[in-house]
Amino acid sequence: MSRPRKSEDTRRRLLDTGVAVLLERGYHGTGIKEVLDRVRVPKGSFYNYFGSKEAFGAEIIRHYCKGLGEQLAVALGNSRSDGLAGLKKHFRQAIRSCQDDRCGCLAGNLGAELGDSSEVCRAALAEAMNNTQEHFRRAIKRAQEQGTVRADLEAGELAGFVLNAWQGALIRMKVEASVAPLRQFVSLVLDDFLLPERGK
Amino acid sequence: MSRPRKSEDTRRRLLDTGVAVLLERGYHGTGIKEVLDRVRVPKGSFYNYFGSKEAFGAEIIRHYCKGLGEQLAVALGNSRSDGLAGLKKHFRQAIRSCQDDRCGCLAGNLGAELGDSSEVCRAALAEAMNNTQEHFRRAIKRAQEQGTVRADLEAGELAGFVLNAWQGALIRMKVEASVAPLRQFVSLVLDDFLLPERGK
Repeated sequence: MSRPRKSEDTRRRLLDTGVAVLLERGYHGTGIKEVLDRVRVPKGSFYNYFGSKEAFGAEIIRHYCKGLGEQLAVALGNSRSDGLAGLKKHFRQAIRSCQDDRCGCLAGNLGAELGDSSEVCRAALAEAMNNTQEHFRRAIKRAQEQGTVRADLEAGELAGFVLNAWQGALIRMKVEASVAPLRQFVSLVLDDFLLPERGK
Repeated sequence: MSRPRKSEDTRRRLLDTGVAVLLERGYHGTGIKEVLDRVRVPKGSFYNYFGSKEAFGAEIIRHYCKGLGEQLAVALGNSRSDGLAGLKKHFRQAIRSCQDDRCGCLAGNLGAELGDSSEVCRAALAEAMNNTQEHFRRAIKRAQEQGTVRADLEAGELAGFVLNAWQGALIRMKVEASVAPLRQFVSLVLDDFLLPERGK
């Protein structure tokens, strides 16, 4: 029996739609059928693309992370640009997009919902967060060399803290239905905690 | 027709079990039937206790918050005790309990999963987080008067930041399957950011 040709375009549309639906409803709140209906793919052919809902979830996380990585690369700039200014630009854009829709970050949402109940998704989430942290680390390292970020703590440690504190601010945004916690994050982390004089 | 007498004991067991199951599986991953089976309550009588799954969810959040408030009151101490030491004690205990089970905080998990998809639950989550923040605020205010926490920022603002950064560290703990992000939170927030000399 011949297997239907897998269309890369359909696969991509399933992943794009998966990101949107998971952001809205979480992992357990999302039915595969709903994603398939939106993309107009018959249920029977889902398994030509993904082995299971769990595998689909992990692929959606990787797909989301890839898109986020591209955005981060643009906002954070290159090896010659201002590291701290890049970080501020990234979070300014993120707050702007949260003003339109308060879905938060897919990796943070699923991390909180799933924890270690799915090892496949947990591993994809850990990779996604470590990728983001690495983007932050490079910008912070550069800012340390440029003298705009405290240098008494390692760039990787600061980057992890920045990412985690941001994830917490996103949760509080969802709970309060307000971006005020995100602005507070910028004011207390980027404009205070990271300052060179705070490390003396 | 007489309505069955509502037993306060059964109601409490439903809420206790609800906390445990929601912590494990999240809101959408939890079926009411599973909670009822664990408590050995027949499905038909659920509506004698709670009006809907959503109302049950909100009650579970309030029940969890009440228990947390009692723990916080003990750990954070009274108006004469050391405010910063109380905060450290609370987070030390929380990290110890996360070493046994990495379920995180029910309010943070549901905040990330549900966001504003349920207004009833969102309002209960906001109240729960504001209660916790108020406990922190009182301890921080005292510590500011005792000279152990920076006084250049308002106690309420610092308390909100402490709570949000902690929630973010809990998510990262779940994703990394390690309490290292919680220890980093203590080291960077309690042992650094809050210090009086960081506010000068």
